[in-house]
Amino acid sequence: MTDTQLLKNLKLPDDLKKLSFKELNLLCDEIRTEIIKTVSLNGGHLASNLGVVELTVAIHKVFDMPKDKIVWDVGHQCYTNKILTGRLNKLNTIRKENGISGFPKRSESDYDCFDVGHSSTSISAALGLATAASINDEDKKVIAVIGDGALSGGLAYEGLNNAGRFKKNFIVILNDNKMSISRNVGSMARYLSTMRIKPGYIKAKNRIEKVLSKTPFVGNSLQSFCFNSKSLIKHTLYNSTIFENMGFAYYGPIDGHNMSKLCEILTVAKNSKKPILVHVITKKGKGYHFAEENPKAFHGVSSFNIKTGESSKSNNNYSAVFGDLICNLAKKDKRICAVTAAMTTGTGLSKFCREFKDRFFDVGIAEEHAVTFSAGLAIEGFIPVFAVYSTFLQRSYDQIIHDVALQNIKMILAIDRAGIVGEDGETHQGIFDVPMLNSIPNISIFTPSYFEEMKMCFQRAIYDKDGLCAIRYPRGKEGYKPSYYKLSNNNFDSYFEGNIVLLTYGRLFSYACEAVDNLLKLGIKIKLIKLNCIKPICKNIINLVINAKYIFFFEESIKLGAIGEHFGYMLAESQFNGNYILKAIDDFVPQATVKSALKKLGLDVKSIENTILNIIKDDKV
Amino acid sequence: MTDTQLLKNLKLPDDLKKLSFKELNLLCDEIRTEIIKTVSLNGGHLASNLGVVELTVAIHKVFDMPKDKIVWDVGHQCYTNKILTGRLNKLNTIRKENGISGFPKRSESDYDCFDVGHSSTSISAALGLATAASINDEDKKVIAVIGDGALSGGLAYEGLNNAGRFKKNFIVILNDNKMSISRNVGSMARYLSTMRIKPGYIKAKNRIEKVLSKTPFVGNSLQSFCFNSKSLIKHTLYNSTIFENMGFAYYGPIDGHNMSKLCEILTVAKNSKKPILVHVITKKGKGYHFAEENPKAFHGVSSFNIKTGESSKSNNNYSAVFGDLICNLAKKDKRICAVTAAMTTGTGLSKFCREFKDRFFDVGIAEEHAVTFSAGLAIEGFIPVFAVYSTFLQRSYDQIIHDVALQNIKMILAIDRAGIVGEDGETHQGIFDVPMLNSIPNISIFTPSYFEEMKMCFQRAIYDKDGLCAIRYPRGKEGYKPSYYKLSNNNFDSYFEGNIVLLTYGRLFSYACEAVDNLLKLGIKIKLIKLNCIKPICKNIINLVINAKYIFFFEESIKLGAIGEHFGYMLAESQFNGNYILKAIDDFVPQATVKSALKKLGLDVKSIENTILNIIKDDKV
Repeated sequence: MTDTQLLKNLKLPDDLKKLSFKELNLLCDEIRTEIIKTVSLNGGHLASNLGVVELTVAIHKVFDMPKDKIVWDVGHQCYTNKILTGRLNKLNTIRKENGISGFPKRSESDYDCFDVGHSSTSISAALGLATAASINDEDKKVIAVIGDGALSGGLAYEGLNNAGRFKKNFIVILNDNKMSISRNVGSMARYLSTMRIKPGYIKAKNRIEKVLSKTPFVGNSLQSFCFNSKSLIKHTLYNSTIFENMGFAYYGPIDGHNMSKLCEILTVAKNSKKPILVHVITKKGKGYHFAEENPKAFHGVSSFNIKTGESSKSNNNYSAVFGDLICNLAKKDKRICAVTAAMTTGTGLSKFCREFKDRFFDVGIAEEHAVTFSAGLAIEGFIPVFAVYSTFLQRSYDQIIHDVALQNIKMILAIDRAGIVGEDGETHQGIFDVPMLNSIPNISIFTPSYFEEMKMCFQRAIYDKDGLCAIRYPRGKEGYKPSYYKLSNNNFDSYFEGNIVLLTYGRLFSYACEAVDNLLKLGIKIKLIKLNCIKPICKNIINLVINAKYIFFFEESIKLGAIGEHFGYMLAESQFNGNYILKAIDDFVPQATVKSALKKLGLDVKSIENTILNIIKDDKV
Repeated sequence: MTDTQLLKNLKLPDDLKKLSFKELNLLCDEIRTEIIKTVSLNGGHLASNLGVVELTVAIHKVFDMPKDKIVWDVGHQCYTNKILTGRLNKLNTIRKENGISGFPKRSESDYDCFDVGHSSTSISAALGLATAASINDEDKKVIAVIGDGALSGGLAYEGLNNAGRFKKNFIVILNDNKMSISRNVGSMARYLSTMRIKPGYIKAKNRIEKVLSKTPFVGNSLQSFCFNSKSLIKHTLYNSTIFENMGFAYYGPIDGHNMSKLCEILTVAKNSKKPILVHVITKKGKGYHFAEENPKAFHGVSSFNIKTGESSKSNNNYSAVFGDLICNLAKKDKRICAVTAAMTTGTGLSKFCREFKDRFFDVGIAEEHAVTFSAGLAIEGFIPVFAVYSTFLQRSYDQIIHDVALQNIKMILAIDRAGIVGEDGETHQGIFDVPMLNSIPNISIFTPSYFEEMKMCFQRAIYDKDGLCAIRYPRGKEGYKPSYYKLSNNNFDSYFEGNIVLLTYGRLFSYACEAVDNLLKLGIKIKLIKLNCIKPICKNIINLVINAKYIFFFEESIKLGAIGEHFGYMLAESQFNGNYILKAIDDFVPQATVKSALKKLGLDVKSIENTILNIIKDDKV
């Protein structure tokens, strides 16, 4: 491991301008050391950050930040940028509560110009910034740095399509690390792979053009043909990359770890008078051999041992259980397909991908396509299961309405990371899927609280239900399971009696059980209602609770438009006379451990107890 | 106008196989006559349908429907398909209540294989159908027909990107009519325009290749160069269209009104062993000179006079008023920009487009980009106003959350066609925007009921509010305005007293006023509360209504997750003792006039009266 002399003593990023290429490379080594150390302790994105160290340094060397702007796509590769822009001393707080974010955040620094976490937004956002500068006639360069994975998203294409007609300097850096989060897919990925092996592309093009321009005479048939077809050939040469066809000047591919080449080509880009795309080849995990060898495993990691590369991650989680159960189902039922948007590993589909190749579809970071494509499969009798993180499902809202629910097509959404996800923070919390799906007709939503129950929910969704079924489950492992819990295929289950009622679903059920147990020790009896299916809500529940004095509803979801409000409305409609108290999420939720975030939201065991105790304290129940 | 002898006497689509090209062309004339007649009476999409008559006939001539499948993108060009597949006798019911749809509908016919109405879904859906056939080893051709406008949507690119690696026959027909709904934009559009002028493209390509393959010797410098660079030239030739780069064989461009050429190229496509894109040039409005001359005006039309081309459309509507007011605001405030997703005319922005070129952005059918691009503009101090139909805003759900609300960026959504839109039916109703936006933090939603009020809402949104503001307004003109109505900048206004309360907002306010007037004649006094801003809801309203005996809430939105439920929850939380009755929309809403649809939903004047009368009938109020 390298010392960090330069990082400690330089005034960054300004001092970068003075450094030699050799010193810049030393600085890169130091930055790598810091990144590896930090991620080994705090977890985070490793491989992608190690891949763009030289690129980030080179950008700061060539451009004038923060006047010039970098928009990072996805943003999980921003650690070097943070180190270079005054946040080295806070790096140990990254992804921690009240610490700096693992993603760009405008509130943190003037050097962060667009908040991000989801994929494929950079070109559109950067074009907005550049257009503003253009209207204001400011000389400001705007750079979008986008990975080959992010380029599979439709929004990136919409951005390119609009940016290609921009009349001034506009820079897209394609950070091609030959691998998206999962194995990259799609014809764009294949196309890039053919371009990678042609480093002489630019030169050859220039040569052909020179020769053509120097051809004043007509000779044999080939020559004559070439001459006559000159404009055609010129056209095909000029427009021979997709990016050129889309209106960009294209430079590349170049080695993204060669500092002098990077600086050279970025200087060309800086001086361009039109949109330009620079194709940079980088190596994910560069400089840490475990990550170079297994970049997939080191994409997003928990803390790990630097020397051994061993992670503290366990396999005892919902994603892994889902992965096994979907394989078991697919073995018996040839209609079952699995679809993922570049999240094969994250959603637990690695085994399915190996065992059922014909029925496995990684569509790239293309959640819209995933749903509409699934609708097509379903019409022909297949049962597609789209496994997706709650936060990324937001991309499919219209497709769920227009292509699935409207036609009442049968498909399954396996919604992973539902609820609070922890350290990734605001952009990644799975807190919108419930209101999002709740308002759409022809959908059922299951909310298992335990692994066994998740299995049963998939069984019910596939074999007992029509239309779209969503099964939402949290990140991580299952919680406390009390002895009285019974697995059932009811839409809800009721435990105990009392005129204080507690309703909840999903992960919070196990917290509620602990709270109920604790309150019982204080002599307070709670009637506990567990919702196994939150849409549709079974109207019979109303009869069970209508005479209660207090009804508490705890919900790990944004409050507005979710189930607690719907239940409140059902109570109002039924002229409920008691007290209705709903605790859910009112705002975006910042990074913290899941435990701490739920505590702050009033949704952990102690908060549930205290909420109930505070409300009933002046009352004999 | 042509007679319709062939249409009447043939058994379609099967008899197409027997017809000569001359007869097929006669049939096309007859079809055009039917389409023009029908649309002149019922309204609908004219120009796009007239453009694809020959193409549709040729597809049916060459392929075997319904075993083979056509997925129409957007679907507004499906009239010829309906005429050819047993629905000629129902054509006079198109877009009418209980009639056939103006879009493909699986429930109508086996020849419709995917329901549609929104843009850019066809390639993804068709790939799903083709993949299913491939797994099942069925010999079934699947064709996606997509316009150049729809190709500007990101989902279309996601579809192409995934389809390009499909290993079997898969056909995309690019119906290039040189114009999307508004002027087509983006570099893809420019690219297509350069391709259009090269009808010799395929032939020239073949010639170059032949010459190159026959070059056994090395001669002068050019020849030597060509030889040495053979593989490079071959590469650029083979991959010289974007579509070839994306993995498709490319054929075209060809004249989409030349029946024999169409049949020839479709036969080639039918026999392809890999994905193939056929680029067809068509003329919007073909065969009806008013539509040919002004295809924009004849995109979606009300009924019109065939002889004069004059439409019954009026300019007295919210879109037109918005168009004027946004120009007036932009004149005084240089920060105001207007953004549209290919709906310049529809949203009333034609004048803005002419007068404020620098601050006007038509981004193509790219609602995701529209929002993220706007976020970039806003960060630099501009105030972007994205004018969009409610139903298409669904495409921007994640961008609104992730790129705008999360960063609390100030921008304006001008949501046109909010609520019931009428004849376009289920795919186009604007009934999801309220629950969709309601659940997202940092958003304000205004719901003007009259033109003047809309102006005031924009004023408030731009000058009095932070963060994202949505202003939603219906299709068409303003309704009944009672003498007691007062324009105000309050979040709500209350009229009259009584222990029966009626709450509503937006268009329904004028219906509610009529109902209240009528009930007063029966001696029933209603306290009427008009919500001018539905998010956030002012908590003071609760104090005004908490002692009422009945509270009625009428809402032109899907019910689950919208404002009526939220208000019900607020009542439950406040231990409201009376009756709460909420009328809103529970399901997708089929085509009918706005008036008739609202009646069926229980949201017209008479229904409001009756709902109230029925509930209170046994009671002395």
